[in-house]
Amino acid sequence: MSYEQKFGAGIWHFATYVDRYATDGYGEPRSILEAIDLAGQVRDLSVVDLNWPFFGGDFTNDQVKEALARNDLSVVGITPEIYTRVFAKGSFTNPDPGVRKLAHELVTNAADVVRDFGADYVKLWPGQDGWDYPFQVDYGTLWKHSMDGVGQLASENPDLKFVIEYKPREPRVHMSYSSVARTLLAIEKIGLPNVGILLDFGHALFGGESPADSAQLAIDYGRLFGMDVNDNLRQWDDDMIAGTVHPIELFEFFYTLEKNNWEGVWQLDQFPFREDSVDAANSAIDFLKAVQRALGKLDKQGLQEAQSRHDAVTATRLAQQALFTSY
Amino acid sequence: MSYEQKFGAGIWHFATYVDRYATDGYGEPRSILEAIDLAGQVRDLSVVDLNWPFFGGDFTNDQVKEALARNDLSVVGITPEIYTRVFAKGSFTNPDPGVRKLAHELVTNAADVVRDFGADYVKLWPGQDGWDYPFQVDYGTLWKHSMDGVGQLASENPDLKFVIEYKPREPRVHMSYSSVARTLLAIEKIGLPNVGILLDFGHALFGGESPADSAQLAIDYGRLFGMDVNDNLRQWDDDMIAGTVHPIELFEFFYTLEKNNWEGVWQLDQFPFREDSVDAANSAIDFLKAVQRALGKLDKQGLQEAQSRHDAVTATRLAQQALFTSY
Amino acid sequence: MSYEQKFGAGIWHFATYVDRYATDGYGEPRSILEAIDLAGQVRDLSVVDLNWPFFGGDFTNDQVKEALARNDLSVVGITPEIYTRVFAKGSFTNPDPGVRKLAHELVTNAADVVRDFGADYVKLWPGQDGWDYPFQVDYGTLWKHSMDGVGQLASENPDLKFVIEYKPREPRVHMSYSSVARTLLAIEKIGLPNVGILLDFGHALFGGESPADSAQLAIDYGRLFGMDVNDNLRQWDDDMIAGTVHPIELFEFFYTLEKNNWEGVWQLDQFPFREDSVDAANSAIDFLKAVQRALGKLDKQGLQEAQSRHDAVTATRLAQQALFTSY
Amino acid sequence: MSYEQKFGAGIWHFATYVDRYATDGYGEPRSILEAIDLAGQVRDLSVVDLNWPFFGGDFTNDQVKEALARNDLSVVGITPEIYTRVFAKGSFTNPDPGVRKLAHELVTNAADVVRDFGADYVKLWPGQDGWDYPFQVDYGTLWKHSMDGVGQLASENPDLKFVIEYKPREPRVHMSYSSVARTLLAIEKIGLPNVGILLDFGHALFGGESPADSAQLAIDYGRLFGMDVNDNLRQWDDDMIAGTVHPIELFEFFYTLEKNNWEGVWQLDQFPFREDSVDAANSAIDFLKAVQRALGKLDKQGLQEAQSRHDAVTATRLAQQALFTSY
Repeated sequence: MSYEQKFGAGIWHFATYVDRYATDGYGEPRSILEAIDLAGQVRDLSVVDLNWPFFGGDFTNDQVKEALARNDLSVVGITPEIYTRVFAKGSFTNPDPGVRKLAHELVTNAADVVRDFGADYVKLWPGQDGWDYPFQVDYGTLWKHSMDGVGQLASENPDLKFVIEYKPREPRVHMSYSSVARTLLAIEKIGLPNVGILLDFGHALFGGESPADSAQLAIDYGRLFGMDVNDNLRQWDDDMIAGTVHPIELFEFFYTLEKNNWEGVWQLDQFPFREDSVDAANSAIDFLKAVQRALGKLDKQGLQEAQSRHDAVTATRLAQQALFTSY
Repeated sequence: MSYEQKFGAGIWHFATYVDRYATDGYGEPRSILEAIDLAGQVRDLSVVDLNWPFFGGDFTNDQVKEALARNDLSVVGITPEIYTRVFAKGSFTNPDPGVRKLAHELVTNAADVVRDFGADYVKLWPGQDGWDYPFQVDYGTLWKHSMDGVGQLASENPDLKFVIEYKPREPRVHMSYSSVARTLLAIEKIGLPNVGILLDFGHALFGGESPADSAQLAIDYGRLFGMDVNDNLRQWDDDMIAGTVHPIELFEFFYTLEKNNWEGVWQLDQFPFREDSVDAANSAIDFLKAVQRALGKLDKQGLQEAQSRHDAVTATRLAQQALFTSY
Repeated sequence: MSYEQKFGAGIWHFATYVDRYATDGYGEPRSILEAIDLAGQVRDLSVVDLNWPFFGGDFTNDQVKEALARNDLSVVGITPEIYTRVFAKGSFTNPDPGVRKLAHELVTNAADVVRDFGADYVKLWPGQDGWDYPFQVDYGTLWKHSMDGVGQLASENPDLKFVIEYKPREPRVHMSYSSVARTLLAIEKIGLPNVGILLDFGHALFGGESPADSAQLAIDYGRLFGMDVNDNLRQWDDDMIAGTVHPIELFEFFYTLEKNNWEGVWQLDQFPFREDSVDAANSAIDFLKAVQRALGKLDKQGLQEAQSRHDAVTATRLAQQALFTSY
Repeated sequence: MSYEQKFGAGIWHFATYVDRYATDGYGEPRSILEAIDLAGQVRDLSVVDLNWPFFGGDFTNDQVKEALARNDLSVVGITPEIYTRVFAKGSFTNPDPGVRKLAHELVTNAADVVRDFGADYVKLWPGQDGWDYPFQVDYGTLWKHSMDGVGQLASENPDLKFVIEYKPREPRVHMSYSSVARTLLAIEKIGLPNVGILLDFGHALFGGESPADSAQLAIDYGRLFGMDVNDNLRQWDDDMIAGTVHPIELFEFFYTLEKNNWEGVWQLDQFPFREDSVDAANSAIDFLKAVQRALGKLDKQGLQEAQSRHDAVTATRLAQQALFTSY
């Protein structure tokens, strides 16, 4: 790394959570200000992605800025909450045009928040856009709405970047922006320069992708605008601590970013339901720093030579030699 | 069917839900009394399984009984909520003995509710009992606590049945009572006559089981004390409407129950996040009635003859002939 | 159906198989001529897709034509075997340019066979093109080779159609043409009118897609050149008999084709390892004919109205009413 | 390790393979003698498990012994091939009693081979015992045959150990010995001291188990008679090189064995379809030796203390510290 790598996190990493069973939550509710103060306790964290509207109270941008300032944090992106109750049947693809309009307005307002915070992008995660049952939707219409919703926003706000975070499913049984390739198809069709991908390592794993391949593809289309990491068992979006299950593929992911001189923030998207959130973030970043050291140590010429023969034994051995001596 | 088949549902079918994204819920919160009134609107529903403590207010047993009476419903089981915040790291397997004691007390009190309602069983779904990360727990200790917790309750309440509802995962990444076989191992070790299985069709599918095989196994051990149905994509506990994805395996499941003269309630365990809950229940029961008709129509002698040769083509054709003409 | 629907099958449906365990095969080896004679015994089968080189002997095109003629069969496509030993590390993406050239020559010769038989397309299933291990390949190079290989062939043979059959994996742990969206991305990049998709229903299911959605997407890009059906448990390419596990989604798939006036052959791609292959084909076609009847019976206006509200309960009920009364 | 750890491999690791696509094989066929000579080239390999009948020729036990002797190898187990063509519909559970008898005879003869080679066990992998389709089999009968087949052999050969290697599926869509718990249920029912489990790390992962938990359970029942390792993507039995995908869970698996003073052979069950088999074995053993070093370095007291609190962050950090500095 010739530059100082920045580490970031979604601010929800420091919130508490509910699910359909623990409806009283996995801890006392926290406001976004409290979450920012926790983020500030993490060693080496310098940027955050903020949900908007701000959770836990009716806070002004200035109050949030003050909390960020006292924790020496800046904002990389804003995530408008287009997946709450009113959007239960979809945001951009809601069957009700009135709700689609609400989604548009919410994101339009979030765009102003991006401007106000000097952030890099509006993050779109339309997690309720999709379907659950066979025969439930007209797929052509749904997909068109998926693209139109994003396209209109990007077209109306040419000064800002919009990043789409795809995921195969959850909370819908099928999410419309389901994979890196599907999202790139949409972006190509939308045809605007300010729409890109936020690649979540765990979503790619969950979707049966090789995350490093997904990154390469998005980069080759000039559309890798952001990324975040976590871990899972490939079967669900578990949002576990990065590096605890798939250290080698995470290493390969960062190797691919480095090879392409991709220089964005290394972000965390973890949900420490039952863990101390500061500790969980520190632990992930400790692993990411081991990855950085391993990247410095990796025999890249040997690796490329092995890859030119598709020689898996040599390639994985070189990766292990670098990573398993770097913690 | 020589007897009148009873249909039932978990009362949560008629609640509203939250998840980690729609934290404001998929609808206005409902009390258990309101949920019972909705259950009463379902054609052909005669029994319910009740979460306990009762949700949505501080209701007495008598208030609940009154709501049940006006809807002509009775209670098949009580489900103590051993998966809320205090139990986030486990109920029977919590690392804190104080919390394990709380779980014991909660279920003990639920046993009294079972007695008071004249229900058939205490349902145990220890969904927070398990682990998320490699190296997180001592597996031997955890499994021992899983069995001890259930065993102690069953031993202290010999007049009641306790049913364990297994599931591979969610909300934990690994749940300790994960499969039919694992649960039977525990039940054999516990060695008490009043511990059995509540077999959830969808959990079996999700776990890679053939639900009809799971039912046969539990029956062969004399431990199939209850069951419920729903549907999913085999990858997650989607709790979709029964018969919308896997009608043939659902038919096979009921065929197996009938063949063994198993005569319990046919229950629903569905989570209609975005659907009208009464409509969703009616639709599932309509399908279950088609299954009943198909069972009457099925060429059972021909089927058994085909099965004696493991003849899949004939067997599936006979099943299709019966089911696909019975709606 | 205003026209007479044609049914077809891959000729391998009537072969015998080996796998890594039953290395002596699931039956006596059969020549392609014997397989054609078996195909001729299936009621209602009128076209076949032929592997090439022809298996089981050194047969001329004329010998094969004669076998087809005596069974009243014609040829829809030719599948060059670009996945045998020499291609174990890839056909279009092989690290050895000499092997890539071999793949090109084999498919070029297969193109002549297509012309000679008057078939519709060359089918490309580059099942060995992909990777197994993290770090094994340079993803950018591999993907470029995937596209170049197909593009060159399509460009050199503008009189013929080339169809790509995607699949998530097997025999490689990751296959490069892995999904409908990924394949469309490649086709768009290749930019030639004669490259399309052969959509295998089971591959779509296996990949976590909703096959009807995949069909709609390919149609919207003008690229659905062919399709085949089978069934599986969504976790692997089991190539089971169509309609034995997922009848409703298969019905939805054909509904989508009909809605778009897609009028190609309804083909089978089944591997009856342990079943009588003629019987397995008849059973699948019997189900497909039930689907045809159900399409005639389906309340399409009611369905579209329900879909306009994303009303899953009504939509699935209408589908069940039509399908579960049509066998 | 207070003793010298022995490393082993299934001899098929050094064979070549066929599958349903590369029917001409992933290389020239090799005889078992050639495979033994390759095994002899692996650093640190001292024992092998042999398929029987011996593949690639009509060899006597003495010829095989001679090949073993010149490579300084001994035999840990014999694997009778009860999954070839004649057993396509099952070995112990075949619907034809004549075939069940054939299976019995084959294993009985394999028992003599075990005796002749002074091996530790007969390994039973009844991969064709199970079902593919709903309604295909009578589950009660099938399961009874599964247990009876093993029980009879164990009862007739009390001087020998029989180990069952379970797997969720492949080549059948459902295998009857599908999980650790199901296999333990059978073993308990059989009730003989000489029946145990051979735990394949990859099969456990594939089945959604935590392999370390599976090992602990089998040990607690006194039934962990053998084990082997490899790796996969949790979705299929990929039989990849151990340590290339899931190094942390492999480490946890060996930690659990050591904690229980389990002192058997560390075996490989890999299928290097496209790799040099000697190189693939060396690479896996290099990783296993790193695991050994990491076990020596692991802060076990700190780990147990963390586990007593279910503290995942500390536990995984301690594991990473030990493993990621040990290659």
